[in-house]
Amino acid sequence: MRTIDWVDGAIELVDQTLLPGECRVVRIGTVDGLIDAIRRLAVRGAPALGVAGALGVALAVATEPDPADAAARLRSARPTAVNLAWGVDQALKCLDGGFGAVLGRALEIRDEDIAACRAMGERGADLVRELTGRDQVRIMTVCNTGGLAAVERGTALGVAQTLHERGQLAEVLALETRPLLQGARLTAWELGRMGAPHRLVVDSAGPFLLARGSADIVLIGADRIAANGDTANKIGSYALALGAHRAGVPFIVVAPESTVDLATPTGSRIEIEDRDPAEVLSVRDVRLAPEGTGVLNPAFDVTPHDLITAIVTERRVIRPGSGEALVAGTI
Amino acid sequence: MRTIDWVDGAIELVDQTLLPGECRVVRIGTVDGLIDAIRRLAVRGAPALGVAGALGVALAVATEPDPADAAARLRSARPTAVNLAWGVDQALKCLDGGFGAVLGRALEIRDEDIAACRAMGERGADLVRELTGRDQVRIMTVCNTGGLAAVERGTALGVAQTLHERGQLAEVLALETRPLLQGARLTAWELGRMGAPHRLVVDSAGPFLLARGSADIVLIGADRIAANGDTANKIGSYALALGAHRAGVPFIVVAPESTVDLATPTGSRIEIEDRDPAEVLSVRDVRLAPEGTGVLNPAFDVTPHDLITAIVTERRVIRPGSGEALVAGTI
Repeated sequence: MRTIDWVDGAIELVDQTLLPGECRVVRIGTVDGLIDAIRRLAVRGAPALGVAGALGVALAVATEPDPADAAARLRSARPTAVNLAWGVDQALKCLDGGFGAVLGRALEIRDEDIAACRAMGERGADLVRELTGRDQVRIMTVCNTGGLAAVERGTALGVAQTLHERGQLAEVLALETRPLLQGARLTAWELGRMGAPHRLVVDSAGPFLLARGSADIVLIGADRIAANGDTANKIGSYALALGAHRAGVPFIVVAPESTVDLATPTGSRIEIEDRDPAEVLSVRDVRLAPEGTGVLNPAFDVTPHDLITAIVTERRVIRPGSGEALVAGTI
Repeated sequence: MRTIDWVDGAIELVDQTLLPGECRVVRIGTVDGLIDAIRRLAVRGAPALGVAGALGVALAVATEPDPADAAARLRSARPTAVNLAWGVDQALKCLDGGFGAVLGRALEIRDEDIAACRAMGERGADLVRELTGRDQVRIMTVCNTGGLAAVERGTALGVAQTLHERGQLAEVLALETRPLLQGARLTAWELGRMGAPHRLVVDSAGPFLLARGSADIVLIGADRIAANGDTANKIGSYALALGAHRAGVPFIVVAPESTVDLATPTGSRIEIEDRDPAEVLSVRDVRLAPEGTGVLNPAFDVTPHDLITAIVTERRVIRPGSGEALVAGTI
């Protein structure tokens, strides 16, 4: 199953707001429809957003009077993940070639993502074995970084999948990931489909379970990696990094090269998306807090590079915690 | 309003599982009814559990053929908070004096809690001002440590209340406190009733918001404080302590002397209650994760004493992070 693809002149994607209850594919034929799907997180995950951005430019060329203007609106639908802007920009470079050239580049990005995730899975699994020295690895992760966050296989969860296929995965401890529960809804669903052993924990238990020795390694994805290695990812990643650091547990970021943003020198320059208070105040239609309660809802946080043992991409392993930079001289 | 009290021969308490939707007082006339109320968290919070334990012994003397046996069952209804066992033991010491002596001691413990919370509020508020140097203080807290966790006023939230009464509280950032959402349901409700400015955040955002400078101090309660200052409290406290330490923000534990357990030398010896997976898998009747998902649900964690700037009780301020011990020689 592909999370997002181009089918008969439109984008088809799995509506992730309906999982795990229902796995429904929706068809999107307009740029505004795609922007809406991105904002309400029907499609999410940095790599999938890159593909969505590129395919969206093809839609813009096919349906919009001013494709460049529509592409600009699409590009800013979510601010933190760099991949969305990257995908739009990649496809826009082919605008002079017309629809065929734009769609061709978008499909190339889709195929590159599939290959990149497979490569990250292999390289990441090797690194996990090297760093933990274990035959059976216990992984902790947050949010969803599986196939649902990409096209076919995932980033951090793709590493867990590769370890599982090699017979080397003991367990995944999946953080539920409030407020939108991507861990409980999506990661648990994907691990169940893989037949991979897993347990769900509340987000705040992550650091304590690391102190107790309940996991051998932490694997997370990324929405934007600054030039010095500081990494923006789902809220809760930083707390896990602090817990891993204190416990002496390796903390690994797994993300494609398209997530690296050399134009952003450090994490302090990354824009953090604040989302709707309603996400925190209710779960589905169940109200959690009294009427009138105010909310602060940052959707991402930034983990400083000194807390990151390694960053794994489809091309390389960088070790910011040991002083390695993405580009020489940036740490 | 009192959270728990003795009224006309029985215990009356606010059923906290119904808040914030409904504030209902339930009447409990048997030890088994009280054990059930404690297990399902109708009454919760370390100080309130101390009072419940003592009043429960009075119930046992009034209604049970073997009061000592009933008291022993009550004593072990929840394992992590030492106050429940402490309250039972205090009342049991008066068993030879009959019902009147036992009830008298239980009511004394109730009154001592009211006085202790007022004293902690004053001493804690002074300390907060000293440590932050601010006229208007922004507090971060987890779980519920307000009047609902005690009898009339709370511990950590009691300090916030005192600051608010002094006109020195800028804001409370309340962590929602998954899985049972005591922050969203109870703390937000209490702060709203006080008219104190507050916003709700997901638990995993706490450490990141401290890194961003969104709060001046962290105040938490405690369920058991070991002799060396290691503190068991609601899951998520340890992650906040890590975040406060990295951000250089003071991290303060506010708890009565009855929470100090000198018989437990270090935090590693504190039993951590693992609770029902159902608490994580659903909110009210809304299912969050796929059927068959396993769960690890530790209800508490342990914060090592080196991360604790100060412990405030009704009698003193101890600074474990600066090498001060609860009893000389225990750090």
